[in-house]
Amino acid sequence: QCDMTGWWENELGSKMHVSEVDSQGNFSGEYHTAVSSAQKPIEPSPLIGSQHLDEDGQCTFGFTVNWKFSDSTAVFVGQCFAGEGGEEVLQSTWLLREKVDSLPSDWKATR
Amino acid sequence: QCDMTGWWENELGSKMHVSEVDSQGNFSGEYHTAVSSAQKPIEPSPLIGSQHLDEDGQCTFGFTVNWKFSDSTAVFVGQCFAGEGGEEVLQSTWLLREKVDSLPSDWKATR
Amino acid sequence: QCDMTGWWENELGSKMHVSEVDSQGNFSGEYHTAVSSAQKPIEPSPLIGSQHLDEDGQCTFGFTVNWKFSDSTAVFVGQCFAGEGGEEVLQSTWLLREKVDSLPSDWKATR
Amino acid sequence: QCDMTGWWENELGSKMHVSEVDSQGNFSGEYHTAVSSAQKPIEPSPLIGSQHLDEDGQCTFGFTVNWKFSDSTAVFVGQCFAGEGGEEVLQSTWLLREKVDSLPSDWKATR
Repeated sequence: QCDMTGWWENELGSKMHVSEVDSQGNFSGEYHTAVSSAQKPIEPSPLIGSQHLDEDGQCTFGFTVNWKFSDSTAVFVGQCFAGEGGEEVLQSTWLLREKVDSLPSDWKATR
Repeated sequence: QCDMTGWWENELGSKMHVSEVDSQGNFSGEYHTAVSSAQKPIEPSPLIGSQHLDEDGQCTFGFTVNWKFSDSTAVFVGQCFAGEGGEEVLQSTWLLREKVDSLPSDWKATR
Repeated sequence: QCDMTGWWENELGSKMHVSEVDSQGNFSGEYHTAVSSAQKPIEPSPLIGSQHLDEDGQCTFGFTVNWKFSDSTAVFVGQCFAGEGGEEVLQSTWLLREKVDSLPSDWKATR
Repeated sequence: QCDMTGWWENELGSKMHVSEVDSQGNFSGEYHTAVSSAQKPIEPSPLIGSQHLDEDGQCTFGFTVNWKFSDSTAVFVGQCFAGEGGEEVLQSTWLLREKVDSLPSDWKATR
């Protein structure tokens, strides 16, 4: 069974720690990003999300990162897989919402 | 100040209820989708996420929906705006992760 | 049968003109965007793409816009539908690639 | 200067051939995908697109693939970079539009 608990690192060098997954699949933790489009220095930021609890170890999951050093929010969505050596690998994609000052700028707010 | 608490409805007829936003901006609730790509009947599904607490009422937010009737997960990310009549409007985009059976199918898992 | 030839306008006020669709479904034209994330003044920019030629009038299509006032490129992909009054409506989504100066910035180049 | 002319292969094993880039940056070619979500056997499919002609070799580009074995259309958008050994590397992302039978299904048509 896939369990998101623990430390994960992506190919950009960003790291995240998931502290505990409850019986509903909800979890929280901290995201340490290696990259940023913001002006201010990067800070670890809280994440909150949930995962399925399928027995086959290939659960889909999602989480939200509420950046502490910017007014942006990121969401990640993905799936666990078993890697070649039996270790777990997470495949995910993301969207980053940057704050814009009015509705007419909404079209460019998400990358 | 923007507050996600309450009922929201989108242009497809999907509805969500956010029960309470805590002092960190975290919230949970329930998503009642009007549309589905799954075989099974739609059921209300739990959501969990967080929002910024900016004073200007234009906070960015994100949340994860853990579908109860499928093994997929959706994430939404967006921003609050004041509508013409002074009411709050949420602008958001989403990603839907469908479970795939192996890594070579990962390319097509997200829409 | 859907035919992209002619003028189209989207909800942001951007307009495009497709000059002719050839027997393969290829077309070219000009895109007049109403919105921009670039510094320089907006200019009409060439577009090139192709559409399916299905008889049911619900063809999918795609095209590339090579912005003349920036070093960015946009792609649009979508489908024709018959609107309520019988007129054609295009539903589309897009990606905007902004030029970045090196590979480590690649993660943030597309919105 | 970046030139899209020639053969390219991605990490999934898909290959494309760009036959010639004209003085406006327009090009056509053929895409040989290694992966498909369609029922029918894969066939090479025509592509058409354009690239910027910046002198620094880091041009952005976009192109449309009009699938011959399905009624879907894909668009790719990306940028050229110089790889470690001096060879050119293309970084790109894509959207795949699948044909849906009516507007209410539009929400799920793109991945």
